Amino acid sequence: MSEPSKPDPRPPGEFELIRWIRERTSATPSTVLGIGDDAAVLRLSQGSDLVTTTDMLMDGRHFVLDQDGPRAVGFKAMAVNISDIAAMAARPVAAVAAVVLPRKSAAEVVRGLHAGMAEVAAQYGVALVGGDTNAWDGPLVVCVTLLGESVGRGVVTRSGAKAGDIIFVTGPLGGSLLGRHLRPTPRVAEALALNEAFALHALIDISDGLAADLGHILEESGGLGALLEEAAIPVHSDAVAMTHQDGRPPIDHALNDGEDFELCVVIGPEDASRLEANPIPSVNLIKIGQVTSTPGLRLRDASGQTRVVEPAGFDHLR
Amino acid sequence: MSEPSKPDPRPPGEFELIRWIRERTSATPSTVLGIGDDAAVLRLSQGSDLVTTTDMLMDGRHFVLDQDGPRAVGFKAMAVNISDIAAMAARPVAAVAAVVLPRKSAAEVVRGLHAGMAEVAAQYGVALVGGDTNAWDGPLVVCVTLLGESVGRGVVTRSGAKAGDIIFVTGPLGGSLLGRHLRPTPRVAEALALNEAFALHALIDISDGLAADLGHILEESGGLGALLEEAAIPVHSDAVAMTHQDGRPPIDHALNDGEDFELCVVIGPEDASRLEANPIPSVNLIKIGQVTSTPGLRLRDASGQTRVVEPAGFDHLR
Repeated sequence: MSEPSKPDPRPPGEFELIRWIRERTSATPSTVLGIGDDAAVLRLSQGSDLVTTTDMLMDGRHFVLDQDGPRAVGFKAMAVNISDIAAMAARPVAAVAAVVLPRKSAAEVVRGLHAGMAEVAAQYGVALVGGDTNAWDGPLVVCVTLLGESVGRGVVTRSGAKAGDIIFVTGPLGGSLLGRHLRPTPRVAEALALNEAFALHALIDISDGLAADLGHILEESGGLGALLEEAAIPVHSDAVAMTHQDGRPPIDHALNDGEDFELCVVIGPEDASRLEANPIPSVNLIKIGQVTSTPGLRLRDASGQTRVVEPAGFDHLR
Repeated sequence: MSEPSKPDPRPPGEFELIRWIRERTSATPSTVLGIGDDAAVLRLSQGSDLVTTTDMLMDGRHFVLDQDGPRAVGFKAMAVNISDIAAMAARPVAAVAAVVLPRKSAAEVVRGLHAGMAEVAAQYGVALVGGDTNAWDGPLVVCVTLLGESVGRGVVTRSGAKAGDIIFVTGPLGGSLLGRHLRPTPRVAEALALNEAFALHALIDISDGLAADLGHILEESGGLGALLEEAAIPVHSDAVAMTHQDGRPPIDHALNDGEDFELCVVIGPEDASRLEANPIPSVNLIKIGQVTSTPGLRLRDASGQTRVVEPAGFDHLR
C-alpha cells in the first residue's frame, strides 16, 4: 500500500498549470495541434475565410473578481468574444487566452477561469488551443482571441444598411449590470440561421448599448439615420429594476446600457416582410424601427412625437 | 484663409484613436476586412492551415515603459509573437492587439505602440487587422495574437526529435536583457528556408533560454536527452558583458538567459550532413550538439569532461 501523498506546500508553477489545463482540454475536428507548442494549428473548412476578434477584460472594469469569482470571469471573457463572431454571422471555431494572474491566488484563479471558459467553449463547439500565463501583484487581466470561419454567403458587416431597411433585435435590453453581463448568451445560432435565410444588410452585437451600436451601423453605412418606435423596443425587467435604483426611465437603460450581447440586425424591407410572415421558429426577433436617409437616431413615442437620441455610449479610454 | 486650429484640450477618446490607427493601417492581400467591425476577416492561402499564438507583455516584467518607451514595447510585442510563428516554420499573416493603457498617457502610449508594431509588421508582411483598447490607472499591458499559415510541408513541432539527431541554433545567445530583448529578429526566413530544404524534426524559438527550450523539445519528443559541445555554443558579446556585471560564466548566460529569439533546430543526421556540406547562404546555423536517448542535458567541455545542465528556465507564475 502506498502512503497517502502529502499536499505540495508550494503553489503550482507555470508548467504544472499548463499541464493541468492541457489535460482538461478537448480538441475539436478543427484542431490539428492544441496547447503545448509554440503555436496552435487549426484546419478551417475548405473555402471559408478566417474571422478573428480579441477582447481584454480587467478586474474592476469588466468584472469584480472578489465578488464574481474566476469562473464567471472565464465564462464572460469567452462568451463576449464568441458574441463578436456571431455579430459577423460566422461560426466560432477556437480560442486562445492570455492572462495576468494575481500572484497570491494564481492557481485558484486560473482553474476557475478555465472552468468558466471551458463551459461556454463546449457549448459553442470552441476548442481552447493555446494561451499565455503570467502573474503579478496587480489585478487580473484576461485577453481572449476568438477564431471563427465564414459560412454560406459569408460574413455580415456593419456597413451594408440602406435607407428603408428594417431594424430588429434578438431580445430584451437594459440593466445587464445587475448580473446578466456575466453570463451573456452569444447569438451564434440566430445569426447563422438568419444569414442562411436572407442576405442580411448589417449586423452587430449590442455591447456598448443599442443606441451606440446601431449608431456604429448607421455611421459605417455612410451616415444614415434611424427612426425607432419606443413602444416596440423590448425592455428587460432588469432595466425596470435599474429604474427603481436610479430613477432613469427604463427606455434609457434599454437604449444605453451596454453588454446585452443581443444582436441588432438590419434587413431589406422585402426580406423583412417575408421574415415577419414566416418567422424562423428558433430565432426571437423584435422589429424596432427603420433606417432613414436623414442622419441621427430618433425615437417615436406612442403619441407620434419624435425626439432625438444622443448615444451615451461608453468610451473605454475615459 | 482658415484660422489656425486650436489644440483639443481633451485627450482623444477611444473612437478617435481607433480612427487614427485605422488611417495608418495598410491591408495585405490576405486582408478581407480590417479594423473597424466586430471582427476581422482574413483569407489564408488555399490548403494551408491556420497557425496562431498569443503573448501578453506587462510593464515591469517584459519591459519598463518609462525607460524603453512605447514604440519599443510595440516592436517587442509584435516581434515575439512573429517569432512563435517562425518557431512552427509557418508564415505570419496578420495580428490583433489588445491593450490596457495607463489612463494619463493613453494617447501618447497607443501611438508609440502602434508605431513599433507597424514597423515590425511591415517588415514581415503582417497586417494589423483588429484590436481592443482600454485604459486604467494601472500599468501598461499589451496582448498580441498572431495569425499565420502553414506552407509547403506543413508546420514543425517540438515533438519530433530522435536520438542521433543534430542540434543547431541560428545565432549567438545570452545577455539579451542588456537591450537586445526589445528588438528581436524573428527568424521567419530562416525557418521557411530550412523547412523547404529538409524535413526538420523539431523547432523552437529560444525565449526561456537554450537549456529550457531545448529541454521542451527533448521532453515533448518522449523524454530524450542531449549532449552539447560547450565550445560550439555561440556566446553573444552581451553574455560576456553580463559576466563582467555578475561574475557568472558567459556559458551560463548563453544557456539560461531568455529572450534571444534565435531558433533551435533539430535535424536528422543525414540531412544535417547534407546541410553542412551545402549550407543555405541566407541561413546562419551553428551546430551545437546531438540528441541522445539518455535523458538529461549534458555539456562537454574542451577537455572531454561532461557535466549535467539543469535548466534554470523562468517560471512566469513565480
